[in-house]
Amino acid sequence: MTKFNAKEETDNIIEFIRNYYQKYSLGGAVLGISGGKDSAVVSALLVKALGKENVVGLTLPCHSIETDKNHAKLISDFYEFRLFDFDLTKIFDQFKTNIDTLYSDLKETDVKNADINLKPRLRMASVYYFAALLTELEKKPYLVIGTSNKCELYVGYFTKGGDSVHDISPIADFTVEEVIEIGKYLQVPNEVLFKAPSDGLSHATDEEKLGVTYKEIASYIEEPERVEESARNKIKIFHQNAFHKFTTPTYKRD
Amino acid sequence: MTKFNAKEETDNIIEFIRNYYQKYSLGGAVLGISGGKDSAVVSALLVKALGKENVVGLTLPCHSIETDKNHAKLISDFYEFRLFDFDLTKIFDQFKTNIDTLYSDLKETDVKNADINLKPRLRMASVYYFAALLTELEKKPYLVIGTSNKCELYVGYFTKGGDSVHDISPIADFTVEEVIEIGKYLQVPNEVLFKAPSDGLSHATDEEKLGVTYKEIASYIEEPERVEESARNKIKIFHQNAFHKFTTPTYKRD
Repeated sequence: MTKFNAKEETDNIIEFIRNYYQKYSLGGAVLGISGGKDSAVVSALLVKALGKENVVGLTLPCHSIETDKNHAKLISDFYEFRLFDFDLTKIFDQFKTNIDTLYSDLKETDVKNADINLKPRLRMASVYYFAALLTELEKKPYLVIGTSNKCELYVGYFTKGGDSVHDISPIADFTVEEVIEIGKYLQVPNEVLFKAPSDGLSHATDEEKLGVTYKEIASYIEEPERVEESARNKIKIFHQNAFHKFTTPTYKRD
Repeated sequence: MTKFNAKEETDNIIEFIRNYYQKYSLGGAVLGISGGKDSAVVSALLVKALGKENVVGLTLPCHSIETDKNHAKLISDFYEFRLFDFDLTKIFDQFKTNIDTLYSDLKETDVKNADINLKPRLRMASVYYFAALLTELEKKPYLVIGTSNKCELYVGYFTKGGDSVHDISPIADFTVEEVIEIGKYLQVPNEVLFKAPSDGLSHATDEEKLGVTYKEIASYIEEPERVEESARNKIKIFHQNAFHKFTTPTYKRD
């Protein structure tokens, strides 16, 4: 990691959020609280920028590991913002029941990829639902806040139409290590800040699934030559394959 | 409408789709068939570009009007592509039940906007589910195809995280009138081609809800002065307010 001033960057992000809210007369912020460091850091930034009364976190379990919900609670208690639990399990199961009426004998491998990406899409739909509802109930516009960091974005480790859909993106220009530095400065509880990143949907960590570490991705972004060859090649391919997630090819007449 | 060569544009769009599929070794196409002209025209283009065996349409009713499903069937029969019915009503209702456990006394006006936008988001999640499932079952990559036209996009008449999420966009550069010209050339059945555009979610047409006609929007895009003042001002405001749907403000360090 090159020289990084956590205090200065934190102040700048807070100012960025505050300016945007003032410019468009916005009110509140909703975000999914996964129990991981990214959403913890972002919620801390939002509380500083907008005040705790204007921040609403959601836990969105979907056949999920209970620990994540406890970590989310730890964060909302620490920064004193409201946290609602919106369990997606029954909604997901109803979706699957619908699928089973059309396809009666699907194998686990047939639906694996479809199932994995359905969950973040249901989460996105839920966070936007709350943003619209809170906007009405509290008579001030709520936005959906993104929690993607630079490393995840670089390798396309997100779901198109899922966590990639949000209204403002505060930490997308920071690598995982930089987000941790910001988190230290904001005193994010260590249990959350130093937990191995995982989507909470499977039992493997992100790094196990990717086959490269976030540190390697961060190094690659700064200076590809510093990363050993096999990791370098993997990251390069991930990045190329992610291209379609950022842009929609559109026919234009001459 | 300025001079428009429907045959030439149709050929160009077909070539665009075919080239993109060849370049990335893609296989099939999934799209929601609403029963309106946009999805009818796009499905016709896809059948010509990829062959009917590679096109799958979905009806995605959600407390919807039955007529739309009949019109969708008319289109899939006419162009001979597969059509599956995936009814979202129970999924939507389960979602609402979840909300009611958190908020016990919501009024109709509190949830109106949230409900309206939840439906296209559930539709998006469904179309992507089928794309991933069909990719596995048929061992060839399926993409999700967008059906937005230039007028809808211009005034922001779409749901962020809903119909705006797709993998390729064939008619986004054409106004409603131009899409109709392409539809005539492709022999889209008149019942569908000349039906008043509606989202099928409420009983009002798009134009009633917008308070301007698509013809006025098309004229405005070409030459604002041609549109009378009150419509012109409305369209201008819609366009300005839609800006946030196209871009996500992201903090970047200096």
